[in-house]
Amino acid sequence: MKRIDSIQNGSIKTWKKLHTKKERDKVGKFLVEGFHLVEEALKAEVVETVLIIEDITFPSGWKMDNADVVIVTKDIMQVLSETETPQGIIAVCQKGDVADIDLQGGTYLLLDAVQDPGNIGTMIRTADAAGVRAVIIGNGSVDVYNSKAIRSTQGSLFHVPVIKGDLKEWITKLQVNGVKVYGTSLHEAKPYQEVAVEGPAALIVGNEGSGVQEEVLVMTDENLYIPIHGRAESLNVAVACGILLYYVRG
Amino acid sequence: MKRIDSIQNGSIKTWKKLHTKKERDKVGKFLVEGFHLVEEALKAEVVETVLIIEDITFPSGWKMDNADVVIVTKDIMQVLSETETPQGIIAVCQKGDVADIDLQGGTYLLLDAVQDPGNIGTMIRTADAAGVRAVIIGNGSVDVYNSKAIRSTQGSLFHVPVIKGDLKEWITKLQVNGVKVYGTSLHEAKPYQEVAVEGPAALIVGNEGSGVQEEVLVMTDENLYIPIHGRAESLNVAVACGILLYYVRG
Repeated sequence: MKRIDSIQNGSIKTWKKLHTKKERDKVGKFLVEGFHLVEEALKAEVVETVLIIEDITFPSGWKMDNADVVIVTKDIMQVLSETETPQGIIAVCQKGDVADIDLQGGTYLLLDAVQDPGNIGTMIRTADAAGVRAVIIGNGSVDVYNSKAIRSTQGSLFHVPVIKGDLKEWITKLQVNGVKVYGTSLHEAKPYQEVAVEGPAALIVGNEGSGVQEEVLVMTDENLYIPIHGRAESLNVAVACGILLYYVRG
Repeated sequence: MKRIDSIQNGSIKTWKKLHTKKERDKVGKFLVEGFHLVEEALKAEVVETVLIIEDITFPSGWKMDNADVVIVTKDIMQVLSETETPQGIIAVCQKGDVADIDLQGGTYLLLDAVQDPGNIGTMIRTADAAGVRAVIIGNGSVDVYNSKAIRSTQGSLFHVPVIKGDLKEWITKLQVNGVKVYGTSLHEAKPYQEVAVEGPAALIVGNEGSGVQEEVLVMTDENLYIPIHGRAESLNVAVACGILLYYVRG
C-alpha cells in the first residue's frame, strides 16, 4: 500500500486539479468522496485509486481488486476534499464510455441547460428511481462530475447511463425508434394530467430560469405543464421533473 | 430616511443576532434577503425595516408605507448578509400569527422532522404551487426562518400558512374534519398509484434518513410509497413530496 505525506507530491497536485471541469474534461477523470459514493464507484468498476486517511479502515466486503490504495495525511485529505466535513475517503475515478443504448421501449430524461449542480444531481437520482434507460445532458448544462452534482445523485450517477449530447439529434433518434417526446413549457402546452401517455416516453426539462429552448420545444410530440394552484410562480425544476417523470413512465 | 454607518451600531448588532434560531424564536423576527423576497415580504405586510445600501434605488411600485427604510454601508450589508453575493437589500420581518384555518376541504402538508433547510423550503414552495391550505411543521424540523430555507421557498413562505404544531394533534383534528391523512413509509404501505384519493387530503412526509415516525404512521388513514424501478435507494424527500402532493390533490 502506497503512502503520500506531502501536499507538494505531484500526484496530489494532479488530483487536486480535478476540482475544475476543464481538467476533468481533459483527462477524463473525476473525484468522488465519502464512503457511500466510493462504494458505489467501486461497484461500478470506475475507480482508479482510493485515497484514505491512515486511521480509517475499509468496510468489509468492498471489492478493491482493481483499485490502487494510497494512505494520505489529514492535511492532504483536506486539500482534496470539497465537503465541509470530510469523511476521510476519496476515489479518483475514470469517466466510462456509455455503451450503445437500446432505444426500443423505455423511459428517457433529457436535460436542457440545467445550471444548478444540486438540481442536476437530484434529477439523475430521480431518473434512476424511475428506471429510465438513459439521461441525456444537452449543451449548456452544469458538469455532472461537479462534486456537488455527484453528491446529489447519491450514487445514481453509477447506475444510469448519463450521456452528453445534442438534444435535437436525440429527439429525432428517439422519435424514429417510436419513443414519444414530451417537452415542458408554460406556453402552448397542456396540463400534464390531460395527456394520456402510453408506451415509451422521453421527458425534457430545462433551465431553471428560461426553461426548455424554443427550438427544442418545436420538435416534441407534445409539451406539458404542471398547473400552479396557489401563488408560487413555479416549481423547483427537480421537483417538476419528479412529478412528470413518474407521470410519463406510468 | 435613517442612515447607519457603523458596524458597532446597536441595531445592527441586534439584527445580526437574527442569524440564530434562538434569537428568532425569542423576538419573533427574521431576516429576508434580495429583491424578490423583500418584495414578497412587503406584499405580505410583515416587514418592519428595509435595509439597503446607498447606491441602490427601490424598484417602482413597491408598497413601502408601513416599513422603515435604513441606508447602510456595504460593510454592514456584508455583516448582515447570509448569501455569497449579497444583492444589497435585507428586510427585518415579523413572524405573523396564523389565523384559524378552515379545515373543511382542502389539501394539507405535514412535515415530520425534516432536517435540510433547502428541502423544507422547496417543500413549502411545492405546497404553495399545489394550493395547499396549510403546511404543518412538526417538532424536530429545521427552522423555516433559516435563511437558506426562506430562499428555497422563493417567497412561498409569505403565501401559505406555515404552522408549528404537534403532528399527532393535527392528524386527529384533520380526520375529525373529514380530511383523509396519508403517511409515507417504505414498510406496510401501498404504492401510491393503487390508492384512489378523493376529497380533502393531508400528506405527511418525514425525515431525510428515518422517514415519518412510527407513532405518527399508525394514526394515518393509509400509508403510501413511491415505487423504485431502478437502483436508487430512495428519492430526495422534496421530490417525493412533489410527486405525492400532486397525486393526492388530484
